[in-house]
Amino acid sequence: MSAQDSAANVPAAGQEQPQADGRKASTIVIPGEHPGDGAIEIPATRSSISEAQKYMHNLSMSPSMKDRRGSRNSFGTSLPIPRSKRQSRLSSVHYPADGSTDGRPNLSGRPGMPPIQPTRALLAAQVQTIETEKVKKAKNMAFAFDIDGVLVHGDRLIPEGKRALEILNGDNELGIKIPHIFLTNGSGKPEKARCEQLSKILQNPVNTEQFIQSHTPMSALAEYYSTVLVVGGEGYKCREVAEQYGFKDIVVPNDIVAWDPTIAPYRVFTEEERATSRPRDFSKVNIEAIMVYSDSRDYATDMQIIMDLLRSENGRLGTMAKDPISQRIPIYFSQGDMLCPTEYWTPRMSQGTFRIGFEAMYRAVTGVDLERVVYGKPELATYKYADEVITSWMEQLHGEEKLPENIYMVGDNPASDIIGGNMYGWNTCLVRTGVFQGGDNDENNPANFGVFPNVLEAVQTALKKQLGDDFKCHFDETINPVTGEKDDAAAIE
Amino acid sequence: MSAQDSAANVPAAGQEQPQADGRKASTIVIPGEHPGDGAIEIPATRSSISEAQKYMHNLSMSPSMKDRRGSRNSFGTSLPIPRSKRQSRLSSVHYPADGSTDGRPNLSGRPGMPPIQPTRALLAAQVQTIETEKVKKAKNMAFAFDIDGVLVHGDRLIPEGKRALEILNGDNELGIKIPHIFLTNGSGKPEKARCEQLSKILQNPVNTEQFIQSHTPMSALAEYYSTVLVVGGEGYKCREVAEQYGFKDIVVPNDIVAWDPTIAPYRVFTEEERATSRPRDFSKVNIEAIMVYSDSRDYATDMQIIMDLLRSENGRLGTMAKDPISQRIPIYFSQGDMLCPTEYWTPRMSQGTFRIGFEAMYRAVTGVDLERVVYGKPELATYKYADEVITSWMEQLHGEEKLPENIYMVGDNPASDIIGGNMYGWNTCLVRTGVFQGGDNDENNPANFGVFPNVLEAVQTALKKQLGDDFKCHFDETINPVTGEKDDAAAIE
Repeated sequence: MSAQDSAANVPAAGQEQPQADGRKASTIVIPGEHPGDGAIEIPATRSSISEAQKYMHNLSMSPSMKDRRGSRNSFGTSLPIPRSKRQSRLSSVHYPADGSTDGRPNLSGRPGMPPIQPTRALLAAQVQTIETEKVKKAKNMAFAFDIDGVLVHGDRLIPEGKRALEILNGDNELGIKIPHIFLTNGSGKPEKARCEQLSKILQNPVNTEQFIQSHTPMSALAEYYSTVLVVGGEGYKCREVAEQYGFKDIVVPNDIVAWDPTIAPYRVFTEEERATSRPRDFSKVNIEAIMVYSDSRDYATDMQIIMDLLRSENGRLGTMAKDPISQRIPIYFSQGDMLCPTEYWTPRMSQGTFRIGFEAMYRAVTGVDLERVVYGKPELATYKYADEVITSWMEQLHGEEKLPENIYMVGDNPASDIIGGNMYGWNTCLVRTGVFQGGDNDENNPANFGVFPNVLEAVQTALKKQLGDDFKCHFDETINPVTGEKDDAAAIE
Repeated sequence: MSAQDSAANVPAAGQEQPQADGRKASTIVIPGEHPGDGAIEIPATRSSISEAQKYMHNLSMSPSMKDRRGSRNSFGTSLPIPRSKRQSRLSSVHYPADGSTDGRPNLSGRPGMPPIQPTRALLAAQVQTIETEKVKKAKNMAFAFDIDGVLVHGDRLIPEGKRALEILNGDNELGIKIPHIFLTNGSGKPEKARCEQLSKILQNPVNTEQFIQSHTPMSALAEYYSTVLVVGGEGYKCREVAEQYGFKDIVVPNDIVAWDPTIAPYRVFTEEERATSRPRDFSKVNIEAIMVYSDSRDYATDMQIIMDLLRSENGRLGTMAKDPISQRIPIYFSQGDMLCPTEYWTPRMSQGTFRIGFEAMYRAVTGVDLERVVYGKPELATYKYADEVITSWMEQLHGEEKLPENIYMVGDNPASDIIGGNMYGWNTCLVRTGVFQGGDNDENNPANFGVFPNVLEAVQTALKKQLGDDFKCHFDETINPVTGEKDDAAAIE
C-alpha cells in the first residue's frame, strides 16, 4: 500500500482534509494543547531554540528575531513519550535462535520463553522464600545497559557482556531475575529486528519490552501527526520503523526527489531509487512534522528538503510561509551525538553534527532560529521513558508494577550514558571497552559509581553493593535451600 | 600525469619534502610573511573568524576559545590576488564561432580578432581625432557586468545584453571601444571553456583577459601552496581549473575516498569514480591548504574530509593535531552566496550555506572557531582584482595602463553585485532581469546609479551620463567626420 493510499484510507484523527490553499495549521493537534491519551509529555532538558542567533558573520543578513507569539513549536519544550505497556510494545518475545544459553539451564520465566525445568524453578522458589531480605533488595534494583562498546562491538560479542546478562537472568545464588533494560542511541532498524540480532550475538534473550533505541520513544508522536517526513537511515528501513510506530502516512526524501528531481539539483538519483520510491504531487500534501531517525546518507538533499519544508506554509512544498514561525512545522531529532565510532580510526560525524550544521544554515537563510526537539541520551525524556519501561518490565518479571530504587547505568560514553545517568540520579558505571579511553575517571562527566574494566566487573560490584559482599554470582542446583548444605538427592535428580 | 607524479617532479618552490612525522608547518610559505612576487594581498572585508562561538547549545562542549598566538591562519585576514597581466592570463582570444556579429562589422581591434575593415577603422580614427573631449571621457569609463540574470539566463541570451555589448565594442558614434569586464560569482569551469561558451551565447567576443569567476583570483594561491585539496564542482572539472592556475599537486575528495572508503562510511562510491580517481597513501601526504571552488555535490563526504584535514597535524590524514589552531591548515572558499537560482522555483542552497553549516559543525566538534577566507563578490579582494583586470584591459584597448575613474557595475543581485559595488565606490546599476524582483530600489542595498529594466537601458544611461545626452549608440559609416554631413563618397565605398 503506498503512502498515498494510506493517507486516503486513514485520515488522521480529528483532522480536516487539507484545503486548497494549504492552510491547516489550526487543525493540527499540538501536544500540550490536547495531549494524546497514550502519551506523557516530558519537559525538554535542552532549550528548544537553536542558539545560532549570535552566529551570523558580518556579511550575512542581520539577525532580526521575530516575536514568538503564535509559534506552533511552543510544544518544542516538551517531549511526548509513550505510556508504559502500549499495545505496540506487547510484541513477541525472542530468545537465542539456537536455544543455547551456554549449557546453563535457561531461567527465563517470561511468556513465550522455553519451558522451565520444574525442579530448578522449585529450588529457586524455595531459596527465595527463605532469603526474603536479599530477595527484597534484589527486586529493588535494576540495570540499564548501553549496547555498543559495553556488550558488543558492532556484531562482535564482548564476552563479559554475555556472562553479565546470564547472572541477571538468574544465574545467581537466589536464582532470581534482576530487571535490566537496553538503552541505546542507536537507530535505523525496527526494534524487533534489532532485538533478534542482539539475542543471537549475546546468546541471552533480548526482548523488545526491555529495549529502547534513540527513536523508540518517538512512537508517541504518532498520536499527534499523521503525515510525516522521515529522514535518515539505510534504504527505506526508517519508513518501516515509522510504520511500526503507527504513523499513517510516511514520506521519505526519495519520494520527494522522485516527484521533482530539481528540488535537489546535484542529487544523482538511481533507477532503483526511482523504482522503490513513492512519488506523488507533494504540492497537494501537507507534511505535518519532520522526524530525523538516523544518520542522513545524503546531507545535501536531506538538508535542502528539510529547509524547504520548514520554510513552507504548513509543510506544503511549492509554498513559502509569509511568517517563518507560526506556519513552520515541527522537527524532531532522535538523538544528539556529535560523533559515532565506526570502522575508521577516529569517530565520524553523526546526527548531532548534522543538526548543528543545519541549524546554522537555517538561521543564515531565514534570519530566525530553528526550534527543534532532540530525543535520545542524555535527554530527560529518554530516561523518563526508561523508567516506564523498567516499571512495566518489573511487572512482567515479579508481578510488581513499581520502579526499583537502585538503578545502575552501564555505559562507555561519558557524554551521553554517564552525564545523562548522573543528571537523572542513577548510579553510573563507566566501562573501558568502548569510547572512553581516559584515566581514573572522565574529567567532564565522572561516573558516580566508578570506572570498570568491563561490564561484568560493573555488574558484580553493583550486586555486591546491594546484596552483600558474599553474594554469589552462580546458582548452585545441588544446594539444600533449607540446610544450606549440599543436597545429594537434589543433585541426583 | 598523476597528481602524485607532478608532486614528485615539481617540488614547491622553497619547500622541504614532508618529514616522516608530518611536521612541515614551519616550512609553509605564509602570505604576509613572505608575499609571493606575483601576488598582492588584500585585507579581508569580513572577519576571518567564523562567529560560531556563541552558537553552541547547552549540552555541547563548552566554548573554550584558545589563545590565537601561533595561528597559521593569521593571514586569513588578507586575500592574495594575482597582479595584472600574469603569464597565465595571456591566453588566446575568443570570438563568436560563427564569426557573426549580427550583420554589423566586427570592430574588435584586439590581437587575434578578425581583420578590421580599413575604411571603417580609418573613419573611426578620424572621428576620434576630432572628438578629442568625448574620446577622453570615453577612455575614462568602464563597465563590470554580472553575467547570470544580466546578460544571460543559463544558456539563454538576454537580447538586450547582446546589444549592450555591441555598443561597447564600438557600435557608437565614436566607433570607440569602451572597456568592460565580466565579474561573476559563477564557478566550476576553466575560464577558457566558459569564455568560449559565453562568446557563442552573447555573439560578442568574451576574452579570458576581461573575465573573472569567483575562483579566478585564487590562482594567486598557487604561489603559496603546492599540495592542495580542491572541493566542489562537477566530476573533476575543478581539478582542471586548479591545474590551469598552476597548482602542482591537486587532490580531490574522490582520491581520498578511493584510498580509504571508511573515511566516509555512507558514501556510495561507483566503479567509475574509483577508476577515475587518483588514490595514494594520504597518510604520507601533507595537504597544505583546502580550496572550495564550487558547490559540493556530496556534503556529507566533503564536510567529513574537510573536518578530518582541519583537525589533522598539518593536513596529514591519519593524524590528530595536538593544538587545533597552530597545526591547522588554511581553508579558502571561492564565494559566499547563500542561495543560487536554478531550475527549481525557489533558489537552492549554495556555497555560503555549506560554509556556514560547516563552520558550526567545526565549532561543535573542536570547541574552537574556524578561520577561513572567502573570495568572490562582495569581497574587497575581488573588486581590487577587478581593478587589476580593468587596468590591464585598458592597456590592451587603448595602450594606456590606467584605471578609468567612472566604473559602472551592472548586476541583478543586491546582496553581492550592488552591496559590493557600493562599498567599493563604483556606480551601481540594478537590473530587473534576474534575482531582484523588488520595487523602486532594493531596500537593504539600493543601487546608487539606479534600477533599470535591463542591461541595455543601464549601459545607455551611463554612456549619456558620461558622454552627453546626445551621444549616439550607433556608428554611422556614411558620416563625414570633418563636416559632420552625410558623405556620399564614403557612402558609396
